[in-house]
Amino acid sequence: MSEIIRIRMDDGSVTREKLSNEEIRIGGRALTSKIISEEVDPACDVFGSHNKLVFAAGPFAGTTVSCANRLSVGGKSPMTGGIKESNAGGNVAYKMGKLNLRGIVLEGIPTTKELQILYVSKDRIELVPASQYRSMPVYETADKLREEFGKKVGMAIIGPAGEQLSMAAGIGCTDNEGRPSRFAARGGIGAIMGSKGIKAVVIDDTGAKGPEIADREKFKTAQKAITQEILNNEQVAETYTKLGTPGMVNITNSMGALPTRNFSRGSFEKADEISGQKMYETIKARGGEGNTSHSCMPGCLIRCSNVYADASGKESVAPMEYETIGLMGSNCGIGDLDIIAKLNYACNDLGIDTIDMGGAIGVAMEAGLLEFGDGEGALKLMEEVRNNTPLGKILASGGQRTGEILGVRRIPACKKQIMAAYDPRAIKGLGVTYATSTMGADHTAGQTIRAELEHTNSKGQIEASRNAQVINTMIDCLGFCFFTGSGINKKFEMIVELMTAFAGSECSLEDLKEISRETLRMEKDFNIRAGLNDSDDTLPEFFYTEENPDAKTVFDISKEAMQKIFTLE
Amino acid sequence: MSEIIRIRMDDGSVTREKLSNEEIRIGGRALTSKIISEEVDPACDVFGSHNKLVFAAGPFAGTTVSCANRLSVGGKSPMTGGIKESNAGGNVAYKMGKLNLRGIVLEGIPTTKELQILYVSKDRIELVPASQYRSMPVYETADKLREEFGKKVGMAIIGPAGEQLSMAAGIGCTDNEGRPSRFAARGGIGAIMGSKGIKAVVIDDTGAKGPEIADREKFKTAQKAITQEILNNEQVAETYTKLGTPGMVNITNSMGALPTRNFSRGSFEKADEISGQKMYETIKARGGEGNTSHSCMPGCLIRCSNVYADASGKESVAPMEYETIGLMGSNCGIGDLDIIAKLNYACNDLGIDTIDMGGAIGVAMEAGLLEFGDGEGALKLMEEVRNNTPLGKILASGGQRTGEILGVRRIPACKKQIMAAYDPRAIKGLGVTYATSTMGADHTAGQTIRAELEHTNSKGQIEASRNAQVINTMIDCLGFCFFTGSGINKKFEMIVELMTAFAGSECSLEDLKEISRETLRMEKDFNIRAGLNDSDDTLPEFFYTEENPDAKTVFDISKEAMQKIFTLE
Repeated sequence: MSEIIRIRMDDGSVTREKLSNEEIRIGGRALTSKIISEEVDPACDVFGSHNKLVFAAGPFAGTTVSCANRLSVGGKSPMTGGIKESNAGGNVAYKMGKLNLRGIVLEGIPTTKELQILYVSKDRIELVPASQYRSMPVYETADKLREEFGKKVGMAIIGPAGEQLSMAAGIGCTDNEGRPSRFAARGGIGAIMGSKGIKAVVIDDTGAKGPEIADREKFKTAQKAITQEILNNEQVAETYTKLGTPGMVNITNSMGALPTRNFSRGSFEKADEISGQKMYETIKARGGEGNTSHSCMPGCLIRCSNVYADASGKESVAPMEYETIGLMGSNCGIGDLDIIAKLNYACNDLGIDTIDMGGAIGVAMEAGLLEFGDGEGALKLMEEVRNNTPLGKILASGGQRTGEILGVRRIPACKKQIMAAYDPRAIKGLGVTYATSTMGADHTAGQTIRAELEHTNSKGQIEASRNAQVINTMIDCLGFCFFTGSGINKKFEMIVELMTAFAGSECSLEDLKEISRETLRMEKDFNIRAGLNDSDDTLPEFFYTEENPDAKTVFDISKEAMQKIFTLE
Repeated sequence: MSEIIRIRMDDGSVTREKLSNEEIRIGGRALTSKIISEEVDPACDVFGSHNKLVFAAGPFAGTTVSCANRLSVGGKSPMTGGIKESNAGGNVAYKMGKLNLRGIVLEGIPTTKELQILYVSKDRIELVPASQYRSMPVYETADKLREEFGKKVGMAIIGPAGEQLSMAAGIGCTDNEGRPSRFAARGGIGAIMGSKGIKAVVIDDTGAKGPEIADREKFKTAQKAITQEILNNEQVAETYTKLGTPGMVNITNSMGALPTRNFSRGSFEKADEISGQKMYETIKARGGEGNTSHSCMPGCLIRCSNVYADASGKESVAPMEYETIGLMGSNCGIGDLDIIAKLNYACNDLGIDTIDMGGAIGVAMEAGLLEFGDGEGALKLMEEVRNNTPLGKILASGGQRTGEILGVRRIPACKKQIMAAYDPRAIKGLGVTYATSTMGADHTAGQTIRAELEHTNSKGQIEASRNAQVINTMIDCLGFCFFTGSGINKKFEMIVELMTAFAGSECSLEDLKEISRETLRMEKDFNIRAGLNDSDDTLPEFFYTEENPDAKTVFDISKEAMQKIFTLE
């Protein structure tokens, strides 16, 4: 049976526990939220000894099932004050799965200020002194760690931002080629890691055999079915594989949902300059190290990731995602992929969430620190962050606090976390998710853009959000990627088959949905005990009062109506 | 009957309403909290059109009853997110009372960015354009306003901090000689005024006759009794009148309750250098403009205020209060009254709360920006605030956010507002007040230092805090000063007599306490609707886990126990 290992930061002690039979299906967000909810005092100091940081793989991690190797990272969030699960692609969860590890829990805080590395292999779990990594940027850290621990290790790394307990700090995870750029970005999860004094978790799966599977033959059959479904999916090939997430730019722009100039409108006059099509053509034209389609996780067949190259063909950043383009691009009035790539790289290197940093730059522009569209100015702001100046510290605390400090009223955040790149007036179901999610304004918490309803009409949005929250959470709990549903044409029975074979006991879709609902209930309960309540389940006032001129709407779903969403069926 | 006037910021319209008979006893905090609680959406954007700013006088304002001319200012707080009443001495409430005005309500927000002055006299209520006052410091503004509106006007003024919506911004009110240094300081009440585009409220009571009093003879008799009680009170003369609030330094220092170096301990090795005795002797020795005893409000017989002069005898700041000395002095390791006076003046001039700024400098010292005890460094930080640099903006947002931005874990705040100058481990009843007050960590919300119980023992503290909260709130609701109880030896029947004569209907102490309880209930209800709940009614974790070495205690009253405090008798 898979294991959970716990490492105490105060004395370095390690304990291992096997999952119980009942827990065989519990992974990813179900596991992080279960541990945080059951073991962490919701009122605790987020950087104190009572908070925990949990890395969790899904049940299928360590196999090559497509899309099934996401890593969940959870804790009490410095950003929202509530529970948080932030997840990332890359190879960390895969290697955890190979080691038959479902979870790694960092507990307590260290008694000294010395940094450490947590090294985990088949035979060894060890805290390694790491003073030499102090303040080191993420990419350099990854290179140095490879020198120290070998080329093939998987790594979850924090940058200077995490070490400094900056609230927008994320955790960079290595992809298939070792780039530490698949981020568990949101909610300040990297700052919790900083408070634990852990610069990186290094997973070495040498000699590891992978997870125990009850019925290997049946599992293979189920995996094959998923593989075929994805490979036969032309829409996936045409959109996700070819254009990747940036393909979303044209879609949201035409809906009036592309955040533009600090969410003051929903269409951007330079949308064509930052679209997925433009990126595809640019990468193709430039050649060199660029790549229009790339797997971030072992086994992934959707390959929505990319490698963006500069004019000389040299890798600029990989990947460049829609959320980054929306927040650091159009939201800042910046219509230049090369500049956005540099901003993206700087965020990765410092270990900062691009969404919250894009929001922070957007409100800084609204405050008049620089003009909307000033890409060079935005890059200079990233230098402020790199140099850890007071202004840099403000920005690294995320968009909400930046707005508060700069006296800006229009802050596009819920539970103090900046919204993903969809205007909630134009996609109202997602607006309901932003408002009511236990996580703050995450798009992956319950995306409704694919739901069949009129997105600017308030009707049916609460139900759409609820359905999306249950399904998206189910996906998170299984360690699957957000795109799995599209990949398999929502034939979730395929995952049920997989689980039945994996666990060796009958499983229904309802069983998996119930894990999701139970996770949402635990999270909501944690948040209430942490001091967040129904009053926090709303959007900022300006979305209710200022029309989005491109979607021609305000947000008009009342807080009272949204509060009923968690009366789950 | 007294009036309330309402001024809309969007169209400049003015409405007047007479108090109803039932409202004759409702003033001060009872009035601000009633209006905010009944009329403001608790979930609203604090700087948006739905928040209101209420100036309220007590029922006896405009008379010369000692201690009865405090001004309450209320709104939804930018600092705490909950309801706020911040009160100040000075002559503004007195002049409102002379005009028979119980309340002034600023509603809506302006449609342009132009600053305005609200001028109120017997015959005129007018918004006056005031662009020339943009970014002007408080003292200069007061001088210029006197040139414009006459020497005898009372004024409530914001500084640059309020204009910039800084969360630690207060409102400076003029004292008897016109110094704009009696601050309604806490909770960012000055930033609400900034969001209304009002630089100052100017009250001209020329020709005004004062409040209607039902039974003037009986009132005079009741007033005389209060006067005699205070004049005969030797303890008042020895402590409040002679040493003023700084007399508290020696008391708290000996209790281990004097915040020292960011609340890391409760006694300060240089306490003698910043004590009331030291201040008294210094002022006496220096002569010149210094004054050891001074009335801030018309009619005050306690005269706890002072004028602190520099070595040349020139006025340095007036007044210098215990809270400022505790937060900007010992809490920052600064043992020099001349430096504290300069810090105090800078805060006043910029329109900033000295408590939250002292807390902010304390956490900045803990973050390593400067050393504890570095007075010149602290003055330089005030220059950062004056120059509105990024670091200045951080500090002006108060201690909680400064700590968050700088990555400091030990932030001595409740509901995001820095504590007054009493360590809650050494005076546990006040700790209960800090935790449970609707207002955040205000000492005047329920001070237990005079309660007869062992302050470091957890026993009886919840009851002591509850009693103090009810009595202190009653005092706030009547427009009386916090020191009234000591002044009249807790003979509150004297105030009952006064109220009976004033209103012309029988009144009991129970009636006045019920106004207080009802006010507390409304406030708590507002806070819950605003998203604050029982989980916010606690102290920061470090007070529970780190011993105050001078009081030799940790705070050990559980959140669960404290939550029961609002089950008011």
